Formats: sequence, structure tokens, C-alpha cells
Amino acid sequence: MTRRCVLCEDDGGRTVWRDARCRVVVADEPFPGFCRVIWNAHVSEMTDLDAGDRDHLMRVVWATESVLRAQLAPVKMNLASLGNVVPHLHWHVIPRFADDSHFPQTVWGARQRDPAPRSLPPEFADQLSRELRRALAARA
Amino acid sequence: MTRRCVLCEDDGGRTVWRDARCRVVVADEPFPGFCRVIWNAHVSEMTDLDAGDRDHLMRVVWATESVLRAQLAPVKMNLASLGNVVPHLHWHVIPRFADDSHFPQTVWGARQRDPAPRSLPPEFADQLSRELRRALAARA
Repeated sequence: MTRRCVLCEDDGGRTVWRDARCRVVVADEPFPGFCRVIWNAHVSEMTDLDAGDRDHLMRVVWATESVLRAQLAPVKMNLASLGNVVPHLHWHVIPRFADDSHFPQTVWGARQRDPAPRSLPPEFADQLSRELRRALAARA
Repeated sequence: MTRRCVLCEDDGGRTVWRDARCRVVVADEPFPGFCRVIWNAHVSEMTDLDAGDRDHLMRVVWATESVLRAQLAPVKMNLASLGNVVPHLHWHVIPRFADDSHFPQTVWGARQRDPAPRSLPPEFADQLSRELRRALAARA
């Protein structure tokens, strides 16, 4: 890379799971439960990874989606790998709620309303971490 | 489903590849090369599929990304499974260009400029179809 990359320099959130290849962080975003799964190495596109690495990263994305659904019961999950601003491979894993600030628009679209107050339980991140360890133990 | 679903009733674009489980369509969107990979059955979330079906769908997404990159040389690929409006599993596979109407914002975000004119070659869809058949032949 020619410029400094924030996801090379920083975890990008509160890390709740990691292995040698990728990490799961709880993002500092105004959408409760918004997580990111971040490839540790500076790679831009999914098709820059080999098939084994792609499968590994997606296994972590599916585990994150599963645990967030079980914890938060969102009306919809949103998944996206964009990287237009930070071209370092990362997946947004976003639980969506009918009364969140943007639903049914994307979180990058037009704000629809003041969101209903929804606070995560204090043990949210610890529980997410524990459930991810359990879900990914066989393969980590 | 209780309401009519547009992706159950219609292909959702110009179909360039399909098998019994999913299809690839060129979408009618003002972003050249914007494709969608659509699961044929009415399922909402990736984690509603079993692992084999998930892997199959993603293999088609990676093939679509690979062929679009080779054909169009975008500055970035954007991938997203959202479904807030149409909760029938589909992946947006979007080649992005620095001079498109929204870059570096998402295609769902704020428009940045009048886009540079960029027309696809007339054989684009046929070539995409041919390359997808080739890439996916071993597994289709």
C-alpha cells in the first residue's frame, strides 16, 4: 500500500474474536450490534484471496451473522464488502431493525427517522465473543 | 411468504447464467455492469441456507466478481446482501469506477457527480454469460 491504512494500523473496533487470518470487531457505529469481520492482511478484493482463505473468511462472517441473530433477533441482516474508502478487505455485518434510523434504506442511505432507543445488554460483547469462540472452535 | 415477491415472480434482470439453485442477472441500474446473484427459492438470510447451499451461492458470487473484474477493470468491487425491501436472498455485485455517479460513496448513498459516460460493449452480456459458464462448468 502507498498510503497509511487504518485497518492495518488499528483493530477497527472492539475485537471479540480473532485468529491468524481475520478478526471480528464490534464497530463504533450508531447501529446496535454492527460488527465487522476484517481480513488481517492488506488485501482489497475477495477474489484476491485464494479459495481456502475466502471460505475461512466467510465461515467467520456466517458465524457472526448466526450469533447476532440469536442474540438480537433483528428483522433483517445486512452483509456488505465495499471498501471504496478503505480498500482493506472487511465485511459489514449489520443487524437491522424496523425502527432503526434508516430501515428499510441501507445504513449508507437516507435517514428515515429518529431511531427507537435500543441499548445492548452490558454483557453483549462478552457473550458475542464466547459464542464466536464456540461456533468457530472446530476450525480456528 | 405472505406478500407477492418480485424475485419469485420475475428473473430480476437479464439472466446470463442459472442453475437449479440460483441465477446471475445483469440488473437494470445506472451503474454499468451491475449484476445480481439471486437464490431461486424464497429464503431471507444466508444463515437460513445450509452450508452446502451457502458455498454454492458464494462460488457463483466469486465467479461473477472475477469475470466482471476481467471484463471491466473496475477500481473496486462492491458486494452486498441486504434485502430490506425485498427479503429474498440476492447479492449485489457492483463494479465501481472512480468517476461513477456515487464513488466513493455506496450506490445507495449520496450522489457525488454526473457520471463519466461509460457504455458497455454490445457483447458484454453474452461474454459474461460465456465466461460464467466456463468458470462454473465444473460445479454447475
